[in-house]
Amino acid sequence: MEPQAGLERSSGSRSGAEAAEERLPASVSAVLPAGGSGERMGGGTPKQFCPILGRPLISYTVQALERISWISHIVVVVSLDNIEIMKSIVKQYGHKRTVIVEGGTSRHRSIFNGLEIFVKHSLIQKPEVIIIHDAVRPFVEKDILFKVVMAAKEHGAAGAIRPLVSTVIASSADGCLDHSLDRAKYRASEMPQAFLFDIIYQAYHQCSDYDLDYGTECLHLALKYSKTNAKLIEGPPDLWKVTYKKDLYAAESLIREAISQQVCVITDMNENAVQVGFLLHKTLKKHVQQVKSLSSSLCKGDNHLQNILLGQCYNFICINDTFSDFQKTQQLVEMLENTNASVLYSIVLISVHLNKLEDTPCRNEMPKFAELAKEVNKANIFLYGIIIHYKQDNVKLQEIGDSAASLIMALIRDRNPAFVGQLLVA
Amino acid sequence: MEPQAGLERSSGSRSGAEAAEERLPASVSAVLPAGGSGERMGGGTPKQFCPILGRPLISYTVQALERISWISHIVVVVSLDNIEIMKSIVKQYGHKRTVIVEGGTSRHRSIFNGLEIFVKHSLIQKPEVIIIHDAVRPFVEKDILFKVVMAAKEHGAAGAIRPLVSTVIASSADGCLDHSLDRAKYRASEMPQAFLFDIIYQAYHQCSDYDLDYGTECLHLALKYSKTNAKLIEGPPDLWKVTYKKDLYAAESLIREAISQQVCVITDMNENAVQVGFLLHKTLKKHVQQVKSLSSSLCKGDNHLQNILLGQCYNFICINDTFSDFQKTQQLVEMLENTNASVLYSIVLISVHLNKLEDTPCRNEMPKFAELAKEVNKANIFLYGIIIHYKQDNVKLQEIGDSAASLIMALIRDRNPAFVGQLLVA
Repeated sequence: MEPQAGLERSSGSRSGAEAAEERLPASVSAVLPAGGSGERMGGGTPKQFCPILGRPLISYTVQALERISWISHIVVVVSLDNIEIMKSIVKQYGHKRTVIVEGGTSRHRSIFNGLEIFVKHSLIQKPEVIIIHDAVRPFVEKDILFKVVMAAKEHGAAGAIRPLVSTVIASSADGCLDHSLDRAKYRASEMPQAFLFDIIYQAYHQCSDYDLDYGTECLHLALKYSKTNAKLIEGPPDLWKVTYKKDLYAAESLIREAISQQVCVITDMNENAVQVGFLLHKTLKKHVQQVKSLSSSLCKGDNHLQNILLGQCYNFICINDTFSDFQKTQQLVEMLENTNASVLYSIVLISVHLNKLEDTPCRNEMPKFAELAKEVNKANIFLYGIIIHYKQDNVKLQEIGDSAASLIMALIRDRNPAFVGQLLVA
Repeated sequence: MEPQAGLERSSGSRSGAEAAEERLPASVSAVLPAGGSGERMGGGTPKQFCPILGRPLISYTVQALERISWISHIVVVVSLDNIEIMKSIVKQYGHKRTVIVEGGTSRHRSIFNGLEIFVKHSLIQKPEVIIIHDAVRPFVEKDILFKVVMAAKEHGAAGAIRPLVSTVIASSADGCLDHSLDRAKYRASEMPQAFLFDIIYQAYHQCSDYDLDYGTECLHLALKYSKTNAKLIEGPPDLWKVTYKKDLYAAESLIREAISQQVCVITDMNENAVQVGFLLHKTLKKHVQQVKSLSSSLCKGDNHLQNILLGQCYNFICINDTFSDFQKTQQLVEMLENTNASVLYSIVLISVHLNKLEDTPCRNEMPKFAELAKEVNKANIFLYGIIIHYKQDNVKLQEIGDSAASLIMALIRDRNPAFVGQLLVA
């Protein structure tokens, strides 16, 4: 099971899920503390604002909560310095239902500020259950959020846990091993956690300054000050926290992989183009979860294409009969620009051109293509070109199909802006 | 500080390091348990054999130990199924001083088998201090190995520790929170660890079957059966363990980054080529730690180039005056093939060609270039082409230099075999 930040998994039995959701609390909101300074990244940008494929990490986490319809408000708590940055992130990526709140001098104080808004702000309704999550855990899924919320409704508090990866040890005063804990008896406390609002709010109200300044564990506060033993829920591996630079790399690779799983192949009606489209469809199926094919006139308001965009497809292959003709590609660019499909993720658009001449052609069309690519890059669409030497020989064609598919997969997985406007040869 | 699997960091004061090494134990060897089944990766290939840039993870870890001259033997313990695979890895990547031993049914039994070899095998000398490390922690540095070995010499046992990333909690029988541990008082026990050989060997000899089957912590055995409180050494963040698929991604990105830090620019003696070489040198310096430039005839036995290869440079840019001429590139390919420089890491070779004509040229040389690239790919050399439209206009040239540098950096960082033989236009 791979995490897919902000990409919905196809849910199994829809009616079962709907029935389960009827048991949800009357209202649920979330607090996302994002005030950390990023010292474990070696200074510089705090990790929640580090870009992953060009977009700040926190936007992925907000998106992961935002897509869940039963979460009413997402309160993002950031330090005073970062309020303007956070506002611009919300605007740029069109996040809805977010409220930005100024943080305190510690993690617990920031969460407390986040909770206060539900009590002090007349327009924001106090929820029955509040989720507390980390800004730096972007891969949180609906399933675990649902589980902690339901458990909080029943037990007053709940939190996700994971098995320990390393043995935990206690050291003596002289820096030697005192004892090691039995790994099987302990768990790592992760996020998300959820609470009946009144229970955690009361705990924050009653806790000591020491707790507020040096504590980190919300479950501990609920136990100590509200006498509530949180229900512990075994979570999936995707709950890991982006802590070090290596984690940013891992997150980026996982997101790249997730958005590479759907490809849409569009051909014009020309017979050769359709043949190549069919071949690529077949070959690409070996590499990605879903390949959709369209052989259409791409008229404006094409419902089929609209649906594909709604289905979160970020990769398009457009097959043109000749090189000089990239009208189809241009049409598609226009449609993509109009749908705003590339707001959250860059769209990869690969313009495939058939070359039916025996020898390598002069590429006089190249500057025009590079110019178009440069232009659409501004709209977060990465346009690349592939020339296929088309021959009506099935063996040769198969070979070239494999070579084209491997170029296509490399372009999709890399999403490298540096190669935009380049023409590759299959 | 970034981890660099198998790449040596430039050491500060050489004489200081040498003096320190004089205090090392009489002999040091290492055991590398690598018998795990990889269940946390979701089945399939055990993680220690998963490829990173085409090479199995365990080879990186062996390399990290092997480059340290004072480690006499590296005993790799693998399951019976994987002995042949491990042998072929040792052969293919030219690992020295390794001994392959069959593992047991648990981690502790595997380590025990690894230790036995020093007692039972007449040709392998029993070391004073034995290092125990994980096959799935490839980023271990000399510094921490030295520290645990020295501490083991003094205290009998030593192990690397790291701060806890998550709070650790204990649950009650009904799956609720019982109590949470104070994060400041506990540490995660990591690897490497080191022991006076007799202390850990005796502990393994005396410990119970239950310990051998279910235990995981060597420091615990040393404490329980040899009454030795291990010295705990705060380690660097690079000691993390490749546990999940995300960790493989992170490891791959870190290794990519590490081998992208040195670039060598080679130009022929032509004036234009030298000018472009100078420009690229200047621009690339903004992106990588070290750029070396050579303007030479690349005669065989060129000492300068040999030294660069010994300095672990895996990225070469060869500037040719015209397109039709890629003789210089061919010469370099030959030299690289002869030095075996690409055994551990792929070498990226970018052939830059100046195009002085006004319009885009026909690229009739393309098939010849693609063929050469395909050929040298077999030797783990990735050959790519870049065409620079050369004009004697300084402003334009600067612009094209920036564009070429960004293509070069993308090719180096990606190291994508799919793009081998492609000609890109700057």
